Amino acid sequence: MRAEQLESLLAEVASGRLTTSAALARLRHLPFEDLPFARIDHHRALRQGQPEVVFCEGKTPDQVVSICERLEAADGTFLGTRASDLVARQLRDRFPRTLWNPLARTVHLPLSDRPDQSPGTGTILVVSAGTSDLPVAEEAAVVADAFGNTVERLIDVGVAGMHRLLAAGEQLRRARVLIVVAGMEGALPSVVGGMVAAPVIAVPTSVGYGASFGGLAALLAMLNSCAAGVTVVNIDNGFGAAAAASRICQS
Amino acid sequence: MRAEQLESLLAEVASGRLTTSAALARLRHLPFEDLPFARIDHHRALRQGQPEVVFCEGKTPDQVVSICERLEAADGTFLGTRASDLVARQLRDRFPRTLWNPLARTVHLPLSDRPDQSPGTGTILVVSAGTSDLPVAEEAAVVADAFGNTVERLIDVGVAGMHRLLAAGEQLRRARVLIVVAGMEGALPSVVGGMVAAPVIAVPTSVGYGASFGGLAALLAMLNSCAAGVTVVNIDNGFGAAAAASRICQS
Amino acid sequence: MRAEQLESLLAEVASGRLTTSAALARLRHLPFEDLPFARIDHHRALRQGQPEVVFCEGKTPDQVVSICERLEAADGTFLGTRASDLVARQLRDRFPRTLWNPLARTVHLPLSDRPDQSPGTGTILVVSAGTSDLPVAEEAAVVADAFGNTVERLIDVGVAGMHRLLAAGEQLRRARVLIVVAGMEGALPSVVGGMVAAPVIAVPTSVGYGASFGGLAALLAMLNSCAAGVTVVNIDNGFGAAAAASRICQS
Amino acid sequence: MRAEQLESLLAEVASGRLTTSAALARLRHLPFEDLPFARIDHHRALRQGQPEVVFCEGKTPDQVVSICERLEAADGTFLGTRASDLVARQLRDRFPRTLWNPLARTVHLPLSDRPDQSPGTGTILVVSAGTSDLPVAEEAAVVADAFGNTVERLIDVGVAGMHRLLAAGEQLRRARVLIVVAGMEGALPSVVGGMVAAPVIAVPTSVGYGASFGGLAALLAMLNSCAAGVTVVNIDNGFGAAAAASRICQS
Amino acid sequence: MRAEQLESLLAEVASGRLTTSAALARLRHLPFEDLPFARIDHHRALRQGQPEVVFCEGKTPDQVVSICERLEAADGTFLGTRASDLVARQLRDRFPRTLWNPLARTVHLPLSDRPDQSPGTGTILVVSAGTSDLPVAEEAAVVADAFGNTVERLIDVGVAGMHRLLAAGEQLRRARVLIVVAGMEGALPSVVGGMVAAPVIAVPTSVGYGASFGGLAALLAMLNSCAAGVTVVNIDNGFGAAAAASRICQS
Amino acid sequence: MRAEQLESLLAEVASGRLTTSAALARLRHLPFEDLPFARIDHHRALRQGQPEVVFCEGKTPDQVVSICERLEAADGTFLGTRASDLVARQLRDRFPRTLWNPLARTVHLPLSDRPDQSPGTGTILVVSAGTSDLPVAEEAAVVADAFGNTVERLIDVGVAGMHRLLAAGEQLRRARVLIVVAGMEGALPSVVGGMVAAPVIAVPTSVGYGASFGGLAALLAMLNSCAAGVTVVNIDNGFGAAAAASRICQS
Amino acid sequence: MRAEQLESLLAEVASGRLTTSAALARLRHLPFEDLPFARIDHHRALRQGQPEVVFCEGKTPDQVVSICERLEAADGTFLGTRASDLVARQLRDRFPRTLWNPLARTVHLPLSDRPDQSPGTGTILVVSAGTSDLPVAEEAAVVADAFGNTVERLIDVGVAGMHRLLAAGEQLRRARVLIVVAGMEGALPSVVGGMVAAPVIAVPTSVGYGASFGGLAALLAMLNSCAAGVTVVNIDNGFGAAAAASRICQS
Amino acid sequence: MRAEQLESLLAEVASGRLTTSAALARLRHLPFEDLPFARIDHHRALRQGQPEVVFCEGKTPDQVVSICERLEAADGTFLGTRASDLVARQLRDRFPRTLWNPLARTVHLPLSDRPDQSPGTGTILVVSAGTSDLPVAEEAAVVADAFGNTVERLIDVGVAGMHRLLAAGEQLRRARVLIVVAGMEGALPSVVGGMVAAPVIAVPTSVGYGASFGGLAALLAMLNSCAAGVTVVNIDNGFGAAAAASRICQS
Repeated sequence: MRAEQLESLLAEVASGRLTTSAALARLRHLPFEDLPFARIDHHRALRQGQPEVVFCEGKTPDQVVSICERLEAADGTFLGTRASDLVARQLRDRFPRTLWNPLARTVHLPLSDRPDQSPGTGTILVVSAGTSDLPVAEEAAVVADAFGNTVERLIDVGVAGMHRLLAAGEQLRRARVLIVVAGMEGALPSVVGGMVAAPVIAVPTSVGYGASFGGLAALLAMLNSCAAGVTVVNIDNGFGAAAAASRICQS
Repeated sequence: MRAEQLESLLAEVASGRLTTSAALARLRHLPFEDLPFARIDHHRALRQGQPEVVFCEGKTPDQVVSICERLEAADGTFLGTRASDLVARQLRDRFPRTLWNPLARTVHLPLSDRPDQSPGTGTILVVSAGTSDLPVAEEAAVVADAFGNTVERLIDVGVAGMHRLLAAGEQLRRARVLIVVAGMEGALPSVVGGMVAAPVIAVPTSVGYGASFGGLAALLAMLNSCAAGVTVVNIDNGFGAAAAASRICQS
Repeated sequence: MRAEQLESLLAEVASGRLTTSAALARLRHLPFEDLPFARIDHHRALRQGQPEVVFCEGKTPDQVVSICERLEAADGTFLGTRASDLVARQLRDRFPRTLWNPLARTVHLPLSDRPDQSPGTGTILVVSAGTSDLPVAEEAAVVADAFGNTVERLIDVGVAGMHRLLAAGEQLRRARVLIVVAGMEGALPSVVGGMVAAPVIAVPTSVGYGASFGGLAALLAMLNSCAAGVTVVNIDNGFGAAAAASRICQS
Repeated sequence: MRAEQLESLLAEVASGRLTTSAALARLRHLPFEDLPFARIDHHRALRQGQPEVVFCEGKTPDQVVSICERLEAADGTFLGTRASDLVARQLRDRFPRTLWNPLARTVHLPLSDRPDQSPGTGTILVVSAGTSDLPVAEEAAVVADAFGNTVERLIDVGVAGMHRLLAAGEQLRRARVLIVVAGMEGALPSVVGGMVAAPVIAVPTSVGYGASFGGLAALLAMLNSCAAGVTVVNIDNGFGAAAAASRICQS
Repeated sequence: MRAEQLESLLAEVASGRLTTSAALARLRHLPFEDLPFARIDHHRALRQGQPEVVFCEGKTPDQVVSICERLEAADGTFLGTRASDLVARQLRDRFPRTLWNPLARTVHLPLSDRPDQSPGTGTILVVSAGTSDLPVAEEAAVVADAFGNTVERLIDVGVAGMHRLLAAGEQLRRARVLIVVAGMEGALPSVVGGMVAAPVIAVPTSVGYGASFGGLAALLAMLNSCAAGVTVVNIDNGFGAAAAASRICQS
Repeated sequence: MRAEQLESLLAEVASGRLTTSAALARLRHLPFEDLPFARIDHHRALRQGQPEVVFCEGKTPDQVVSICERLEAADGTFLGTRASDLVARQLRDRFPRTLWNPLARTVHLPLSDRPDQSPGTGTILVVSAGTSDLPVAEEAAVVADAFGNTVERLIDVGVAGMHRLLAAGEQLRRARVLIVVAGMEGALPSVVGGMVAAPVIAVPTSVGYGASFGGLAALLAMLNSCAAGVTVVNIDNGFGAAAAASRICQS
Repeated sequence: MRAEQLESLLAEVASGRLTTSAALARLRHLPFEDLPFARIDHHRALRQGQPEVVFCEGKTPDQVVSICERLEAADGTFLGTRASDLVARQLRDRFPRTLWNPLARTVHLPLSDRPDQSPGTGTILVVSAGTSDLPVAEEAAVVADAFGNTVERLIDVGVAGMHRLLAAGEQLRRARVLIVVAGMEGALPSVVGGMVAAPVIAVPTSVGYGASFGGLAALLAMLNSCAAGVTVVNIDNGFGAAAAASRICQS
Repeated sequence: MRAEQLESLLAEVASGRLTTSAALARLRHLPFEDLPFARIDHHRALRQGQPEVVFCEGKTPDQVVSICERLEAADGTFLGTRASDLVARQLRDRFPRTLWNPLARTVHLPLSDRPDQSPGTGTILVVSAGTSDLPVAEEAAVVADAFGNTVERLIDVGVAGMHRLLAAGEQLRRARVLIVVAGMEGALPSVVGGMVAAPVIAVPTSVGYGASFGGLAALLAMLNSCAAGVTVVNIDNGFGAAAAASRICQS
């Protein structure tokens, strides 16, 4: 423990057991990673109910289980994204309390003593354009919830049928932050951004084919949004959008 | 005249002045460009009031004037796009009847005996998103008009303020064809395409900066439109959109 | 029903059962999606025999069947594109009347009472360059037919053997709209566009390898066509071309 | 006024001067743009002191002055970005109270009765990597200030000299939102994102040459940030970052 | 037969059985594909022993066999590229004389009466950089041979070991045409182009990873060759290089 | 002189003035550039009338004149490409015999004793699509002529008006090599390649705008040509095409 | 043997058995690959303990084994990269002494008499950002070790947690060369480059998704590093980085 | 001074004037930038004679002069790259001792007491392919010299004339580090890398046109070099290559 170490070093100096210059030498090479501010950050993360997040894609089920065991031991909770069915099943064998959302491809072990009161203020509204965008939207919703926020969903409001979106105007204007998920031409964040005053985080998805170039079309569209104040995350990055929204609601 | 040449050749054969094999030899090497169908096409173009179109960019004023002189002599009309002020002024010195639209950068010498009746059926509605898209939209409008169509304009209906577009629903639904011009994220054609049953021709513009990549963002967005049946032309190609709309109205 | 709701609200005001201000409050929050114009659009779609279209790629057979069941119940018809053999077989087990075109990868349940008279005017001619472009061309043809249009096909007329294309000049000039499908260098729409006065919709395909970059070469070529008035849809998007052609013939 | 119009229509129905069906017909075509919610949005914008923003690049000085005259007449304030020296001088001739920031390339006419109390909560900290990034950073700072926020700046803390950034840890952790501006490899937002819990908005700049490809390198780096919750705006878009930060502080 | 048809038409005119105007009408619609020049081309192809070439990739074995059956019936020969083992085996079951080169992935049924004398003049030398480039190089060699040319091979002369290439100077300078195949940085054609006066056809291969981008790096390098007069074909297009070399040797 | 040096070294060994091992040591470090084969190459270049070629772009007029003075002194001839008017005028002041082609942007000082007989066999035909492609086509024609070949030109035969190209069939089929120059969609080489058996060298030009991306569209189209045996050079590289054609005619 | 051949040729001249001019003729065509300098290079490679390296990807296990057999016979050692489990197992069956590192995907047969003393000076430190970058980092470490260098590793020091990297400052500053491996935004080499005076070789990895574009984002970031003197190798090219580091330590 | 501050703090603790917990609190917020290691780095830079480097492009002459005045005052030396003639002239007016290299576009004020003995070991050899690459090569040479290294140059050894490069084999093999500069196809580093055992730093230049894409072609070629151990810097980054070479020679 770093704070303790510093304290005992200072105590040694105070007691005369350690000379000033010897203490100086030791302080010069103080390993930075053990400085108090790092630990404090770590503590706050735990306090806020934000579990460590594991990106499961490209890891074997055994590797994921082994990482989650360490996280559970340290923090009592974990959250995994991009989890295959196989990964999810092995985790649930090991931790039966694990929540598995196959659409979002998430696995989550909530704290057993999660506080009733959400640490965040306001609602995060996850809006998505088409049914194929749902996995990314749901990842955003699950992660935002796991990070201790109040979450709502509004689905299937693509711009080619504007009346559905307009009909939800009240819900849109009520949100503290909006995560807007869309593939193909990625136009939805611009329209939503023009309807609300709250922050809008745009998530392009890789939904599409041909000149969608794996989501590049939607990404570029969102970066060029004519609605001032729309910000963008990586293609298919529902997790990142939720983390950003959580920063807004909780800091 | 090709038809006449063929006729006299056949007459020579019929009269015995030309042997079958000599006629065969000459028919084998018949220059294709003089075949009747080509000429007929040419005649129809004149009938429809569609002047030859000169792309002025990259040509000197002298070159443009010289080309237009030949067109005027042959057809009694010409149309130039991407015309600089200098080009326009020299053309008007030479042909005082020339119509110059500085916003659209077009120069047009209409037929002196243009028919009162438009050859096309229905209205071409040119819709544009932002004020910076106006030059391209106006080029489309001027060319469509010069090709003998009825043209309407609807401007400044960007997707970040949907109520303006929705308010024009009746005008949108009345059009025979819609040319929708937008830069930046290029979302407008998708929204318009979802509101009307008529053909929608999307024109991406190079309006934007950074990740707009000279109009690439808008182009990709339009190619990935979720509104079924939107077609796309090249970046800033107002002329091409007008030509396509004219094909729909007049053929 | 929205119209009825409005009518009874107004009747309540007329009868004095509802005050003006109470009616005002309710009208302010009128859900937009229920506005008459939306329903009217929906009705027209049914009248025209245009079934809802399901993009099957990326959906499980069960999901596709379940969506089609709802469509059949509501509209008596459905159309699916990018259908795998497995999807097609399960749909035919469920709806034996389903038409399956393995080349086009389409599944179609036509209306049992499809009108003899096509709602569209004129013929949609689907032209394709090489044999590898046939799946995309056939998708366009099947969709255009399912949307109630008269469809013709002209295949294997690549630009490296111009005489085949030139020999079909009459058929090309007879069409109301032409859908021109080509991969590799995507040159065919330019040549066809120079031969006809009707609208030409170009469909680039992903046929090719190396510097074709998945159809990008053909897409760029078509966007830069020197034949004025050629419009373009996304790579491999036979469906979109058919929808655009149908808009031209039917609106 | 829309609300009034609705009210009198209902009054006419209540009084029997308008039949139910005639009222129904008029309500069907209600122009959307005049609906109350749109007007309310407009009012709120004025209340918050957020002036309309003019993108001056590509406009003539005369055009900019003319637009600003209309804005000043309507709102008593305006803000212009990407203003050349010439534009700025002409605006100050016309409106001597205009604030001109040559580094940020902004022109701003503040409200004459700007409230002492900022409408936003918390500080927006604008962090920039190199001296060449200053124009974009300064644009963000000026716009955020003009939108009524409290703004701080932290400059010249590039990642190749980490000690400067680390020394500012306290200032970083105090901010409500951080706008992090960097060109070249665009690494700064990742490092800052790992040091704070507040929202981080990354702004890539076009600073660099060769394989920077006009800011593409920095843009891609920021979209791939390993610090969860960093969001990104377009290249050189200091204005957009400020608008997004303002949404976070004020909504 | 077109020539005969023309002859009999002219004979009818000469005999008075056909009027001049009726003949004129029929000549106007003369199908182009039947013009003599097309047939002559076809005959020459057969004379030169160049079989029709089938691109097998993306076709089922049954489709390939069926196409080859038609080619064999018409021409007595066929050549297939990009043939899988399965395709090759089925073809050999059907045509035991089929030559199969697994490295080049070619299948070839030579004419049973192939002339002893090659129709081409001079040698085509196929040069390749690394062992991974061999499939493309071998495709070029097999096709060039099947087209009736004399072919030599020079392998494993990558630019990182210049002495091997320099040692083959005599062989390089003796060739009538050189096909130079290289992946990765694609530098070999520049070096070879500087050593010989004969035409050099460069073939980039998709050999490489990462920033090779599927052969793009090699393609761009070859297009920018500092050796004047190097021409380039598509990535991995050994067939195209052989066809081009054959045009040089045989026309 | 290398050959002389070698001879005297061998003479020293023969006479016993130099030991075998001393000669061996000197031969090991023989400077390669002085080897006979290099000189022979140089001589052949002169014999063929191929002058050294200077790429003038990016050089000052003084630099170009100074390089050309050295070339004239050594070879009695020079050829410059991409020459501005200023460069051309200064060269003609210095060498009044200089031939200047402003369209092709070439400057050429022919050998005073150029042989009447062309060293090449057959005609190089330069075909171009549009008037904007003429500078590149003319550069190819001038360079091919300066290299001692017989050159013909065929202009303005774009694919949107096929009859003009078809009418020139005889001229096309007569050529020994064809250089086909086209911008925009770059389709012309495919059509020409299907009409002739001779080698076709395709030159993409930067003519176009928007999604032409500076000639990339035409370049990709040509690399993907469906006409087997078309080879490609860099964008706007008329010089390279002429050099390649000359290699075909003269080696 | 070249040296011997030269020697006997000179001996023949010295003895008068060969005339000067006959020797001159033979020396003109001296095969370059047999020149002494090439052989010397070969010897030095063996002396330094650097085995020939086989890129196993895309080769069958049989091919790899066969190549390694030849290497082992010639040099007594081999090293393979990108080796699958199957390849590794077959190699170990054949050469039981083979060292297999599944994480690095390397197979190595060290010299049986490897010298105790490393030929290189100083330590190569391999630094990596995330756990997914480990395979590339480990490939670099294994290759550097196999080439006879002293290697250290520092893992999991991503820039979003700067304290871990700062804590390792001493280890970083001690190294002779640093290989810094990172995917996603590729920021680590810039930070490390600012902390040390030694050469830094940056290795981008394909770790990431969406706008990482297979490692392009990290590659561009590293090429634009603001830390002067960082050099870059291809994406995932741990082998190349080790070879470069070895050149620094051993030459 | 940080060390002194720490010392007095510890002294206060030792003397009892400061309690342990108060000292702990102050140590927690220790400003990092004042830590000894940062200062030591600064001192070493001065000792090595490496002046601060100013990137002049995009700065006004006044700004450059003002920055150089501060550098001269602090360090007695400065070095500027990408300096225009105007910048250079103003600097020489202010500091007459300034060395200006117009080809390299560098301005350098050497230390007045520059040590006779170079701090680096071995020679840095700058190799360049064409005359247009000279500015970048010269920038590398000037910077390497200004950093205190021994520098040699080898110019005009492009790969299309290999004998010139081969003739310089001895010079190449003598160098401690090689900086290899090339545009167009960027092949030179691969060839050089195969000839030497020393580190090779490749510098792509923007020399070229068309498909060179501003140096992208050369950059990709160098990243894919088949010569193991070639590393690459940004396009036109002669400065960065010199900095990297200097790290190799001096650390």
